Parts: sequence; C-alpha cells; structure tokens
Amino acid sequence: MSRQIRIKDIAAKAGVSTGTVDRVLHERGNVSPKAKVKVLKVMEELGYERNIIASTLAYNRVFRIAALLPGFHTDPYWEQPFSGMERALKTVRHYGISLEPHFFELFDPRSFLQTVGQVLENPPDAILFAPVFLKESRTLLEACRENGIHNVMINTYVDNPDSLCYIGQDSYQSGFLAGRLLHFGLNEGETAMLLNLEVGSHNAQHLIDKERGFRDYFGQFPGQHIEIVKRDFEDFDDRQKLTSLLDDLFARHPRLNGIFFTNSRAYKAVECLPAGIVQKIKIVGFDLIEQNIRHLRKNNIDFLINQNPVHQGYMGIINLVNHLVFKKNVEKLQYLPLDIVVNENVDYYLKRQEEFEIVL
Amino acid sequence: MSRQIRIKDIAAKAGVSTGTVDRVLHERGNVSPKAKVKVLKVMEELGYERNIIASTLAYNRVFRIAALLPGFHTDPYWEQPFSGMERALKTVRHYGISLEPHFFELFDPRSFLQTVGQVLENPPDAILFAPVFLKESRTLLEACRENGIHNVMINTYVDNPDSLCYIGQDSYQSGFLAGRLLHFGLNEGETAMLLNLEVGSHNAQHLIDKERGFRDYFGQFPGQHIEIVKRDFEDFDDRQKLTSLLDDLFARHPRLNGIFFTNSRAYKAVECLPAGIVQKIKIVGFDLIEQNIRHLRKNNIDFLINQNPVHQGYMGIINLVNHLVFKKNVEKLQYLPLDIVVNENVDYYLKRQEEFEIVL
Repeated sequence: MSRQIRIKDIAAKAGVSTGTVDRVLHERGNVSPKAKVKVLKVMEELGYERNIIASTLAYNRVFRIAALLPGFHTDPYWEQPFSGMERALKTVRHYGISLEPHFFELFDPRSFLQTVGQVLENPPDAILFAPVFLKESRTLLEACRENGIHNVMINTYVDNPDSLCYIGQDSYQSGFLAGRLLHFGLNEGETAMLLNLEVGSHNAQHLIDKERGFRDYFGQFPGQHIEIVKRDFEDFDDRQKLTSLLDDLFARHPRLNGIFFTNSRAYKAVECLPAGIVQKIKIVGFDLIEQNIRHLRKNNIDFLINQNPVHQGYMGIINLVNHLVFKKNVEKLQYLPLDIVVNENVDYYLKRQEEFEIVL
Repeated sequence: MSRQIRIKDIAAKAGVSTGTVDRVLHERGNVSPKAKVKVLKVMEELGYERNIIASTLAYNRVFRIAALLPGFHTDPYWEQPFSGMERALKTVRHYGISLEPHFFELFDPRSFLQTVGQVLENPPDAILFAPVFLKESRTLLEACRENGIHNVMINTYVDNPDSLCYIGQDSYQSGFLAGRLLHFGLNEGETAMLLNLEVGSHNAQHLIDKERGFRDYFGQFPGQHIEIVKRDFEDFDDRQKLTSLLDDLFARHPRLNGIFFTNSRAYKAVECLPAGIVQKIKIVGFDLIEQNIRHLRKNNIDFLINQNPVHQGYMGIINLVNHLVFKKNVEKLQYLPLDIVVNENVDYYLKRQEEFEIVL
C-alpha cells in the first residue's frame, strides 16, 4: 500500500470530518456507529492496518526525541527516569515517536557539552534532558532556541521561558521538607548538617534550591538554638576520605545529631559510619535506589524523599507527544509528589512506580 | 428496539466469535478492521446505541450493588469513600451497574443491623461496606453467605474467607508507622499516648490492630524508656469534657510529649489544647479531612497518615464490576499506600485524590 494515505483522504472518501477519522483511529469514542462503520470500511479498502503504520497514516511523519541523561554507571539513580521514558515509548511509538538516548558523564560538564554537540549534528524535533549543570544547560537551551528544538526538563528546574515544561520535584520544597523532618527529631542545642556529596554543587540548581528550603525551614524558629552546618564534599567515592570527613565532622560538632543528604548518596556515608552512630543520628536522604532502601529497611536511614524519577521520564515523553502530535497545551511546571518514604510504605511506592500508566 | 439482543445473536449474524463482539463493544482492541466493520454493521442494523444500553445488550441484566456506610453528618471522613464510589459508578454505569447507598449511624451498632435488615428485604447482587462494628459485621457476613451475596470490605479488615476482597489500609502497619513517627520525635524518659476518640473501640478491629502495631514499634527498643499510655474516650463531642480529659492527662503524665490519634478526630483534641502545648507536643493523626488539614498547615498537627478513602470507595466498585461483569479473579487483600502527609506534600495528595482513574 501507499504511504501517502492521509486522514483527509479517508475523511473525504467516508464523507466525515477529519476529527471523526482521528477519533476512530485512536478509539477516543464519541463517534456514531454509522460513522465508525464508514471510516473503518474506507480504511479497509485502502488496506489500512491499525497500530503498525497508524502514525505514518495519521501524520505522515516521525518525531525524533533525543534524551540527554547521565550514564547509569556513576549513579544508578539515572536508570529510573530512563526506564520511565522507555515505558512511555511503548505506549506512544505508534504515533511515530522515536527516542534517541545520549548519555554523558555525570560529573563532567565538558562531556555534557560534547553530547550536546553530537545531538545537534542531526537536530531532533525535541530534547528531553536533565539540566544537572546549570551553566552548560543554558548553552543547550540557547541552541534549542536557535534551532527551533522543543525541550522538556526533568529532575532539575532551570528557569527558561521557551521550554515546553519542567517535570520533577520542587527542590525548594523538598529542602524545606527535609528541614521539617530533621527538626522534628532534633533537640534544642543540637546540630543539623546539610551534606552535599556532589561534584560542583555550586553549578547544580537543585542543590542550591534545596539548601535554601532547608535553611528557611529552621529560620522559622529564630528563638531556637539548632545549629545548621553545611558541607560540600567531592571525594565521596573514596571510602577512606569519606570516613575521615565524617570523623572530622563529628569531632568538630559534638552535638551533630541529624544529617540531610541532598541527593541519592546517603548510603555512601551510612556505610562509612560506625553502627552505634548510624542508629543514633537522624538521617534524611533522597531516592528509592536499592542501596538506600537497604539502609532504610535496617533503620540506618530514617526517611527517604521520593522524587518519582520513573514518572519524570514517563511524563517527559507523554508531554512531548501531547505537544508534538496532538498540539495540546501542556502545563509549564509539573511538580511531582514529595513522598515521605519509610520502611512501612516503601513497598507501596516501589510497586506504584511499576504500575502507573497514562492512556492517551 | 427489543431488549433481547444478545452478544451471541450479534456474533452469529456477523459471523464472528462472541469474544470478538465483546472486544468491539468495549473497545479493547485486537480486532481486525474487517471484523469490526461486520460487528458494527450488525449492531447498526439491530439499532444498537453504544453506552446507553450497552449493558443490557451485552449481559441482558443489571447488577445491583448496595453500599453500607456511616452517615456523613457524624464524621465528614465518610463522604470520601462515597465520593469514590460515585466516581467509579460514572465509568461503569453502562455495564448495567446500579448503586444503592444505605447510611447507618456511626456509633450505633443497632442502626447498622437495622440497615442490614432493610438491604436484605430486597437482596442485592453485592454489598460494599465498611465493617466498623466487628460483631455486627459478622452477622452481615453470615447473611451474605446464606443469601449468596458477594461482598467487598473497605476501611476495616475483618477476616472472612468468603469476601471477594478487602481494600484499605493495613491497620497494623499504620499503627507501627505512627509509632515510628512519634518515636523519631520523642526523647528518652518521655511519654507517648495512644488516644482512641471513639465509641466502642473494643468492637473496632482497625483500632485494635493499630494499637498492636503502635506498641510493637516501641517494643523494638526494650532498653529505652518511653512510656506508652493508652486511653479510650467516648465524649469527644463535648468540648468541655474533652478539655478536662486533656488537662487530666497532662497532669498525670507530666512528660507526655506525643499523641497518636487513631482516627480522623485529631482536630477535635487540638482545638481543646492551649496554643503553647499544641505547638510543643508531637501529634500524629489520620485522614485528609478539611479540619485536620487546617491544623496541619498551622503545624498544630505534625503528620497525617492518609488512608486513601476516595480510592477505597472507587476500587470497591471497580473490583465488584471486574468480578460480576467480567468474571475476573480479584486480589483478596488490596492494601493502599500509607502516605505520610505534611504541609509540603498535602496539596499533591489532595490533587491526586481528585485525578486518578482506572480504565476498564
């Protein structure tokens, strides 16, 4: 059969509107049986086979989405948004969507820029990315503007009016929430620490926002004496250095009784702390990755804040399809729930992560 | 047109299987355009109109579901599962489902039994109910057995092998979780109280299970000295008596620093406590009802555990339809997430409550 069949040809031959053909094609209901019969008959005559070439038939084009994410080898967290994208792709592939993943080095802004360069050699219709490097992300956003490439951001919000949308947590609120949780467990005179186990945290907008939220929470109680200490540490993969850091922190701050880990690496520090201390001090971290969950189950980590990364990736694709294919308006800021996860509810959230599905 | 049109008549006339007709009827896909055309043509000839009489056509019968719930006037919580049932009904009404709500008095087991009597005068196909009275619920379950009435329980789990399923929280786990939250905020030597603001709490299985979970949480730390005190109180609607009770409790237990309210009535006690005390002591309650949320936003209540009541009602109907109409097996125990709700995430959960939808 010819690839040139268009919705309007079917509509004309069936004597119905293109909207009706579209509704039949995507089984969106609201079509009289009579009209449906006509449309299906015409499709049959033209040799139409549903699902296999629906997109070509309907839109006669393919939309290429490039995904830019950190590679999983440095941080298993990034597997989750990618798995969400892949799951979404299964439900929208027949609309003519292709997904081209590109992975950069998590701690290397130059690798990010190199990947951007590769992507732009053959510009896609849209880019779905995690702007983990603030400065370099601005470069990418500028390139999108110049080349008319749609873009959606997940994980980290960067203020950019051209972007189709941001899907992820409200980082400020998540820092504020972490403040609430630690404050609940701490006493007057104790010390709370914010620990960025990160490379280049000054260039990570979400960490800046989390810190602001965390400090603002404690700032609500000016009469109270809970000391807030912040520390950036880049050598978190060196167990010996991390152990020394922690020893040093506890020596400097003898009343240190709560730590807020601003990303998915709480488990790295927990593994360097003596059992007696781990059980005693209050720990709040992020992300339902396996290593963290193990320590949550042992009560080594008290609370994990879930950023719903699978959902982020999934909704990134869905929003692009809604915009590119269906020409729908999408909401600019799509904050996902900040689930507070403990041993008693972790299994529900893990299960839900596997189950949700949006029907287009 | 006649009401006697049956799936097998359509199938015979169209020369396809009944399964194919069923798939076309419910737009479940996997039907060739050719077969679809045939089926739709036959339906058209027979004067079929989709949605309006689909159920009659497809199954030639109506399924009557009776819902037994406490009236809203005593406790606004019960509006939520009912709203979930009504929402589900909208999506399944065309399968021939009717919902007959019956309301009993929340604190009056006799009113429950009277309502059961009314329902049984014209036995429905299924009963969806909240077994808030343990003993009287057993009577109802016995009657269901004798009359061959399917039943689904929400909110409170009662062990009963005949029931189609239970949908709701794991009460033991929610008590355990409340223990964790208070334990996190309490110090050695302080007192934690479990307060049942309830009539007849000994006859409420979910309260018994919550208490067991709560005590078991603290039982994990035998070396620690946190005193657990429990109190049942029935006169919670008398503000003066409730105030006296609280005064008395704080006088008896000078180191009382945390209260676990085992149902949706935390706000009633909060409104009887002096501001200074409310802000100081740790409070964990249940349920996202307006009165509680107001106090959560003011930091008077520290944590609310969400039982997802709208979802309970919704899934109660959906599971009955899956069983009655589609003859599907359903899971016996369907625990819903125990969301830990604070000011920073309450709006997400309220929004989600309005949004979810299951596509059958």
